[in-house]
Amino acid sequence: VSATLLSLHPEFLVSSKTRRYLLAISGGRDSVALLHSLLDAGYSKLVLCHLNHALRGKESGQDAAFVRRLAKKHSLPYEIARVDVMQRAHQTGESMELAARNSRHAFFAQCAQAHRCSRVLLAHHADDQAETILFNLLRGSSGLKGMQYAIDHQIEGKPLQFIRPLLESSRSEINRFLTNKKISYRDDSSNDEAIATRNRFRNEAIPLLNEIMGREIRPALLRAALISEAQEKALQSALTDLQLEDPQGRLFLPKLIKLSPALRKIAMFDYLKKHDVRDISHDLLTRCLHLVDNQSIAKTNLPKDRFLRRKEKRLFID
Amino acid sequence: VSATLLSLHPEFLVSSKTRRYLLAISGGRDSVALLHSLLDAGYSKLVLCHLNHALRGKESGQDAAFVRRLAKKHSLPYEIARVDVMQRAHQTGESMELAARNSRHAFFAQCAQAHRCSRVLLAHHADDQAETILFNLLRGSSGLKGMQYAIDHQIEGKPLQFIRPLLESSRSEINRFLTNKKISYRDDSSNDEAIATRNRFRNEAIPLLNEIMGREIRPALLRAALISEAQEKALQSALTDLQLEDPQGRLFLPKLIKLSPALRKIAMFDYLKKHDVRDISHDLLTRCLHLVDNQSIAKTNLPKDRFLRRKEKRLFID
Repeated sequence: VSATLLSLHPEFLVSSKTRRYLLAISGGRDSVALLHSLLDAGYSKLVLCHLNHALRGKESGQDAAFVRRLAKKHSLPYEIARVDVMQRAHQTGESMELAARNSRHAFFAQCAQAHRCSRVLLAHHADDQAETILFNLLRGSSGLKGMQYAIDHQIEGKPLQFIRPLLESSRSEINRFLTNKKISYRDDSSNDEAIATRNRFRNEAIPLLNEIMGREIRPALLRAALISEAQEKALQSALTDLQLEDPQGRLFLPKLIKLSPALRKIAMFDYLKKHDVRDISHDLLTRCLHLVDNQSIAKTNLPKDRFLRRKEKRLFID
Repeated sequence: VSATLLSLHPEFLVSSKTRRYLLAISGGRDSVALLHSLLDAGYSKLVLCHLNHALRGKESGQDAAFVRRLAKKHSLPYEIARVDVMQRAHQTGESMELAARNSRHAFFAQCAQAHRCSRVLLAHHADDQAETILFNLLRGSSGLKGMQYAIDHQIEGKPLQFIRPLLESSRSEINRFLTNKKISYRDDSSNDEAIATRNRFRNEAIPLLNEIMGREIRPALLRAALISEAQEKALQSALTDLQLEDPQGRLFLPKLIKLSPALRKIAMFDYLKKHDVRDISHDLLTRCLHLVDNQSIAKTNLPKDRFLRRKEKRLFID
């Protein structure tokens, strides 16, 4: 791969080059690299969309000015808006993370309407993905979950599709591309994210793990998540086919009891999770599974004063 | 839970207290805690088995002496042996890690024969487990794999079962137990493992991740691995039921093509992995799956100069 070319996701490359896209651009290295690789590849109907989070004073205004210059230089339309995330968080009671996210979504929804285009390109790359996978795992999300290459959202009733054309490019590929093409960008705008945990994860944890393991942990995380995701999908479709629930949404025991122990465990886990039972431990799962094959027990405790009960050949949460 | 009791694994507690067990004991805190909690729970037919790895000079001899005194104090039979792991590694060409492991196995096999007992108790705990899960993930083993509570081995043709009664107890529970019962032990024998990576993982990476996440990452890792393991077992049994391979072990296309895309992906991954294809990336998997539904392609490259080929409605590695 040439260092003056940054490869875009194979699913993205099949899309038409004359299609219009909104490009979320902070002015930092990743989004600027995405802009240039799109222009190089012949995607020209881009709208630069920049949201000034107003979280880092003068710097924020300079980021916006940089994006404006970039748009003018390449004769691209642009949208620049400003939100006070801190104020929004205070007013709505949302966390800073959620307030920032909702502000972004509202902004993109406005851009989508103004430019009659619901596709938003985001500059997340393979290192962001690896970090997200590990972060989600350690935060307690079951399985290995990363970001989707493309994902559909409904923002205030309107469809919005987020697409990540750089999701399979590494940070070092992006840096090489920027260096070799002498592209300028604003220094690490990503650090103005009000997410200290994520930054420490990126700047301290991942480098330490890479050093200890003697190689980059990114490829191993990406491969593991790829399989985990396929496993989860395959099992979800198997469970759907099995129709384990009755019309009232209760688990139907005669069907459950016919499954292999492993599949029974998955079905039970899935049922609990769907009903918002959190932090499902080995002990909890074992107790719930006992209800399936032990006729002498009729209920077992769940967190938050709830129960899993057996009645008339059904299991349900009470 | 009382801090003067250390709970043993529920599956272990159903075993008879008059059954004989070999106890692998280094003299360090974990194995000494296991010994005492077994004695407290009424397991009395224990054989203390100590292998002196001779990796830390005078300290190693003192560990052995400590174990001997412990055995005498509790009137338990013991086996103490000495191996030179470094020498074995030199002679056999094994890595230090493998030489240490094989030495241990050979030692336990001798103990098993001498005491007519094939059950070996190991003192791995829940923090070891979490560390193993994360280590395996970052090393590139697909999915989230930890140690089994009980696992059967064949050592030189003889069966040996390793059992981990403390696998659900945390390091802090073990430390509390030792402190409260004023039990003495040899200081951190685990550090004489010739496994610098594992030690850095334990002493640097895990504490940093705990600190950044603002809580212990152990429970999240254990829960995720529990589900991952069940998912893997459920899918393995589903794939076995589907009988996707012909008698020659080739993938039979008419069956493969009927599967959902996710299950097809799992089946392909499984087939490649079974045939020792390593580091299966998104790109590789995608190319292999193209062979299934694209009649115009007859083969695709695999690492190490191998190919996946389609011929007479079969896929096979060449």
